[in-house]
Amino acid sequence: MEMELLKERIRRDGKVKPGNVLKVDQFLNHQMDTDLFMEIGREFKRRFSDVEVNKILTIEASGIGIACVAAQSFHVPVVFAKKTQTKNIAGDVYTTRVESFTHGRIYDVIVSKEYLGPGDKVLLIDDFLANGKALEGLIDLVKEAGAELVGAGIVIEKGFQIGGDIIRKKGVRLESLAIVESMDAETGKIVFRDEIPQL
Amino acid sequence: MEMELLKERIRRDGKVKPGNVLKVDQFLNHQMDTDLFMEIGREFKRRFSDVEVNKILTIEASGIGIACVAAQSFHVPVVFAKKTQTKNIAGDVYTTRVESFTHGRIYDVIVSKEYLGPGDKVLLIDDFLANGKALEGLIDLVKEAGAELVGAGIVIEKGFQIGGDIIRKKGVRLESLAIVESMDAETGKIVFRDEIPQL
Repeated sequence: MEMELLKERIRRDGKVKPGNVLKVDQFLNHQMDTDLFMEIGREFKRRFSDVEVNKILTIEASGIGIACVAAQSFHVPVVFAKKTQTKNIAGDVYTTRVESFTHGRIYDVIVSKEYLGPGDKVLLIDDFLANGKALEGLIDLVKEAGAELVGAGIVIEKGFQIGGDIIRKKGVRLESLAIVESMDAETGKIVFRDEIPQL
Repeated sequence: MEMELLKERIRRDGKVKPGNVLKVDQFLNHQMDTDLFMEIGREFKRRFSDVEVNKILTIEASGIGIACVAAQSFHVPVVFAKKTQTKNIAGDVYTTRVESFTHGRIYDVIVSKEYLGPGDKVLLIDDFLANGKALEGLIDLVKEAGAELVGAGIVIEKGFQIGGDIIRKKGVRLESLAIVESMDAETGKIVFRDEIPQL
C-alpha cells in the first residue's frame, strides 16, 4: 500500500517535466513541508515497527530533512553521509563512490568511523530512488562499517527506473511510500504502481 | 541567556582542535541528535514567540536538519538555499555568492523564486555562525526576494570571530543559543560568553 496523503500531494504539487523528471521541490526537496515529513516519518515507523533500529543513515543534502523529522518517530540519531570531492581523505572514514546522473559527476561519499560501526542497526532513508546509485552507496557504507542493514525507506520511487529492482534483488527490505510507474509531461498525468491492475 | 542543555552537550561531546576548530559532529553536523534538535527548536520558538514567522530559510547541508526539526515547533515550511557551482543559472532563482573558508571556495547560492517572495516573514536558521558569510548570503536572498527578515537563530556562535558583530550591526535580531568566547585545544576548555564576568 502506498501512502495516500503523499500520492495526493504529488498529484497536486508535483510537476512532470520532459525526460521523466518529476519536480517535487514545492514540498520535498527545496521547500520542505515538515508537517508532511512528520506524517511520512510516522509511516516509516509503522512499516518498520517490527524491527530494531538504532540509527538512521541518509545522504546530503535533500535526504537530511526527511531523515531528521522521521527520526522523531524512531528516537534515534541520524547520520548523514557527506559528498566530497576532496582528494585526500583521512583513514578515519568509510568511503564509497556515487555517480550522480543529475549532476553528471562522481562523488566520494564518506561517513566517520566514529558514528557507524558493528552493533548498529541501520535504517536508510532518502527522498528519491531512481537508478539506485545513492542507495547502493549507503549500503556499501553500512557493509564497510560492519553494521546491520535493517532496511531502506524511500519517499518516492521511480518505478520505471532500475534502482528499485537492484535494491530488492540485493535482499534489502525496501519500503517506498509512493512508486511512480509512469508520467506524462504533456498532460501532467502520474500513474502510481498500485493503480495498475495486477495480472 | 544561553541554552544550558546545549552548552553541557558542547562541553561533553565537542572537541577543540588546533586553529580554533570546534568539532561537534557527534551531535550537530554529521551525527545529529534529533531529540536535542527538538529542544533547540522549542528554544528558538520561545525566543521568537513574539513575532510572526511563516517560513524558515536555511542553507545546505548541515543547516537542514536543525531547520526541519525546529519547524516542528513553528509549523511552517523550510526552504533550503542550494549551493551550486553551475555556471548557467536560470532566471527563476534568487542568487548570491558565499565564500566558504572551510572549503576554500566560492559558491553560488540559490533559492527558487517560487518559494520566497514579498509577504514572507522569514526566520533564518543555521548550525554555526563564525565569519558570517553564509548568514549574510541568506540575508541577501531574503532582501532580493522582497521578503521580511524576522531574525536569525543560530545554534553555536563563535563569539571570537566577526560574524556575530557583522550581523548585529546590520540590525538583524540574532539569537545564538551558545556563544563560544574562547577555546583551548590543549586543555579542551571552552568558555561561553555568559561565563565571562561583565564589567
